[in-house]
Amino acid sequence: MNLEEKYFSNITSRERAIFEGAISMGALFHQFIGTPVSVNTAKDLELSISKSFQLQPAIESVNISINLKKLEEENTEFNYVSLSGEMLDVEITSKVADVKAIIKIEFIEELNYPLMYVKKIIE
Amino acid sequence: MNLEEKYFSNITSRERAIFEGAISMGALFHQFIGTPVSVNTAKDLELSISKSFQLQPAIESVNISINLKKLEEENTEFNYVSLSGEMLDVEITSKVADVKAIIKIEFIEELNYPLMYVKKIIE
Amino acid sequence: MNLEEKYFSNITSRERAIFEGAISMGALFHQFIGTPVSVNTAKDLELSISKSFQLQPAIESVNISINLKKLEEENTEFNYVSLSGEMLDVEITSKVADVKAIIKIEFIEELNYPLMYVKKIIE
Amino acid sequence: MNLEEKYFSNITSRERAIFEGAISMGALFHQFIGTPVSVNTAKDLELSISKSFQLQPAIESVNISINLKKLEEENTEFNYVSLSGEMLDVEITSKVADVKAIIKIEFIEELNYPLMYVKKIIE
Repeated sequence: MNLEEKYFSNITSRERAIFEGAISMGALFHQFIGTPVSVNTAKDLELSISKSFQLQPAIESVNISINLKKLEEENTEFNYVSLSGEMLDVEITSKVADVKAIIKIEFIEELNYPLMYVKKIIE
Repeated sequence: MNLEEKYFSNITSRERAIFEGAISMGALFHQFIGTPVSVNTAKDLELSISKSFQLQPAIESVNISINLKKLEEENTEFNYVSLSGEMLDVEITSKVADVKAIIKIEFIEELNYPLMYVKKIIE
Repeated sequence: MNLEEKYFSNITSRERAIFEGAISMGALFHQFIGTPVSVNTAKDLELSISKSFQLQPAIESVNISINLKKLEEENTEFNYVSLSGEMLDVEITSKVADVKAIIKIEFIEELNYPLMYVKKIIE
Repeated sequence: MNLEEKYFSNITSRERAIFEGAISMGALFHQFIGTPVSVNTAKDLELSISKSFQLQPAIESVNISINLKKLEEENTEFNYVSLSGEMLDVEITSKVADVKAIIKIEFIEELNYPLMYVKKIIE
């Protein structure tokens, strides 16, 4: 089967780069939100999230930084927290043909919301 | 803040419809995979998934059908299964300005993979 | 196979009621945290969570209440939130032979933590 | 607040060891099922899961092995799979006062089900 032709010929490479990056960003958020995390385990969790989502179609890199300041603000009696959208700062780079899309999530205080948007497209 | 202008002026309405639909599809999959489900609870779960993801930005409708035949094939001693990608058939319609995008996931036997793709764009 | 004899003969009915209820409570939390929810969809989500986890072994009932006041406090620009441990008030009743265990999760401000504990055992 | 006295004085140390281990096992399953994983990323994912759940109350160790043979059997066109219950072999050791409980999950073919049970209690 020619997968590209059958399923993706109705969109451009640029559109597909946006599509694949957006899927992985939505996926990453909803897979890992709730994971127990502390200052001591944050680096390992970042690495594991990054490696896991680089497996998905067209994903070239996943740069993730868990906000340790936010983590400490939300710290609990048991010295760990559930990973939340407020702590996530992620950039996913997808590549389709010659187009790269950088999809970003960051917490926007003004919206009280972890916003996902297209940071940049390189053609 | 003008959210649209600040974060989304670098992509077209068509691209943003694809973007928002793709986020919600990735999110839906990774939020609900693993949920206990049986033939008796499938309808309630479908309804709840649909209502939950209609809350996300630009999502107009979420049509979801859990494949009961697959569910029964994977049935366990305890008469329920963990929701898996093989059982999911979903169409998410996003709308941005005058553009609608229909994003689909369906399990493709030939790929042994629950493929997400853009089914249709209506401009 | 005699499942009970093979896997559960090393613990009492009381211990197994605690065991099964605790599994389902840990499961419920980590399955549904992150789900998009608003004041309008909370009831449907509660119902779906309840029905889903009643499927698990030995679970008799799942009473769940999403704290709408907390939900509104955390509300976002997009008029929904990600379900968090701070909003969850759940009681799961498990039953093994003649023993019922009621497992509870509630958010304890003093601990800044959604604590799970055994509320009551009825023998 | 004396947490132990207020919330846990109604159960024995043995019961609480079972309780805490069971919570973490249910949690682990439902947090990580669905995560993208390949033969190449399995070790990192195991480490991250182990470190994450050692943070929870009373958890002493988490030994996890992702079944690579099952992973390869379920492999997809895109050379990774969603982590499923069939691939999970985990032992969680909890400790409360002088009691250790070892909680296990393993996939039992005869039940077509990833069974959680108390493997051993050391008093």
